[in-house]
Amino acid sequence: MKIYLDCIPCFIRQALEAVTMVTSDTKQQETVIRKVLALAADMDMAQTPPVMAQQIHRMVRELAQDNDPYRDVKRQFTQLALQLLPGMEKAVREADDPLGAAVRLAIAGNIIDFGVTANIAEDQVEKELNNALACDIDEHQLDLFRKEINKADTILYLTDNAGEIVFDRLLIEQIDPKKVTVAVKGFPIINDATREDAHLAGLDTMVRLIDNGTDIPGTDLKNGSEALKELFDRADLVISKGQGNYETLSDMNKNIFFILKAKCTVIAKDIGCCVGSMILTGSHSYKGVTARTI
Amino acid sequence: MKIYLDCIPCFIRQALEAVTMVTSDTKQQETVIRKVLALAADMDMAQTPPVMAQQIHRMVRELAQDNDPYRDVKRQFTQLALQLLPGMEKAVREADDPLGAAVRLAIAGNIIDFGVTANIAEDQVEKELNNALACDIDEHQLDLFRKEINKADTILYLTDNAGEIVFDRLLIEQIDPKKVTVAVKGFPIINDATREDAHLAGLDTMVRLIDNGTDIPGTDLKNGSEALKELFDRADLVISKGQGNYETLSDMNKNIFFILKAKCTVIAKDIGCCVGSMILTGSHSYKGVTARTI
Repeated sequence: MKIYLDCIPCFIRQALEAVTMVTSDTKQQETVIRKVLALAADMDMAQTPPVMAQQIHRMVRELAQDNDPYRDVKRQFTQLALQLLPGMEKAVREADDPLGAAVRLAIAGNIIDFGVTANIAEDQVEKELNNALACDIDEHQLDLFRKEINKADTILYLTDNAGEIVFDRLLIEQIDPKKVTVAVKGFPIINDATREDAHLAGLDTMVRLIDNGTDIPGTDLKNGSEALKELFDRADLVISKGQGNYETLSDMNKNIFFILKAKCTVIAKDIGCCVGSMILTGSHSYKGVTARTI
Repeated sequence: MKIYLDCIPCFIRQALEAVTMVTSDTKQQETVIRKVLALAADMDMAQTPPVMAQQIHRMVRELAQDNDPYRDVKRQFTQLALQLLPGMEKAVREADDPLGAAVRLAIAGNIIDFGVTANIAEDQVEKELNNALACDIDEHQLDLFRKEINKADTILYLTDNAGEIVFDRLLIEQIDPKKVTVAVKGFPIINDATREDAHLAGLDTMVRLIDNGTDIPGTDLKNGSEALKELFDRADLVISKGQGNYETLSDMNKNIFFILKAKCTVIAKDIGCCVGSMILTGSHSYKGVTARTI
């Protein structure tokens, strides 16, 4: 997905929230914001939004002189998610359709996204999870997804945020951990999950774990790790979590299912849904033969 | 009031809404947005926010090849306000405190502000007016204001938006039209009222009318008309409507009462109130002796 004009105010807001988080020095904040504005004035609109976010957050980390300014919030929401996990495991176990419940909870976990807003209340996460269990998702897509995960031998699961990945465990358990390789980010970027966060979330003992080799809040196959490239090519199915992965992969001819909460108007318009929708959808750009077409 | 960093995403959003209104050609929209970003990257943060808005909307008018792209919405909301006026006149007449009711309605009218959002529903205006009549405003400030308008011989009333000025008539009637000179904008800027809009609103037959000589969505005394400068100096009291006038005059040592709806976080923070508050307040920057200090 390319950059839309509507993404631009959001880039500036995101930059502002991030610099405000790392310093209270308004002169330093101003310097970064001016750089972001100049960058945006000349940006290539054909690139995907996460490429801009990557550049913005590199500046923020340089300003903070900290390679992971979201470390604390990542740990906070990982802890919260781990506390909530037993209840959610029970909900999945007792659901009429455990896979459907696990997909819903994996979508709900996607609200822990500090790229969209710097203000996420802890109690909002639990509410979102409980609401999600009763929410509609596209049942036709869920059926297609069920067929695809049964048919696939090799599944690449591209994660999004720290904390959220705790709830991804529920979905991976429903799929079959032996089939799944989980990819996290290669370096810290916003509150996206890295190897360290996956370790704290207990994912590393459950599935094979790789990192994607980059600090883009999405998936950059060109600059990604060899492990990512190899698995992306080889996987029968890719499960892509969150907006950033959608933005960077929506135009790929690959058997991908996108799982996310549509949190902004641009994404919602691109998908063709309302803001706030819980999305499970096969890729419209995939030309191959899958459950979707047979 | 200077430009805060939080104003910047809002400038970009405002520019985007305005270019989208005047053309559906995304290439042309992009060209203007890139210019606005470059302008913002180098802007003087010591200037007031309306100076940036002035420059943005000059670009938008040039793109539109139309010196008044908000003409239609200005007429639409003037017509709406004129339809609502008799009911509001009755409400003021029947109020226990007609001046208090007129101030409330003048504040409510301030929601017709296309700088803050390009989406204003007509029914929202009537709701706002009716709600306002029952809303609290600062009674202490209202008492001070009452004393000031009684004491003053010459009052300069700086207007904000088309449509809104219809409701300003109610307040001017309570004050005394003979004391009041109304200033509108010198040239079209967003949906701010000009002479033409004042004529359509019936203000020109009610009070002496001047224009401020500029296309800034606020008051620029340095570049303003001679009539504005002369009256601003001479007036015993200035009544300043809306955010733009507040932003450009809040630091002036002058006996000013600001009347507005606080519609953004920056203004709310500067005033020390919540977003959405109905504001009537004497200037904190005035050092003179007034009802406020005696």
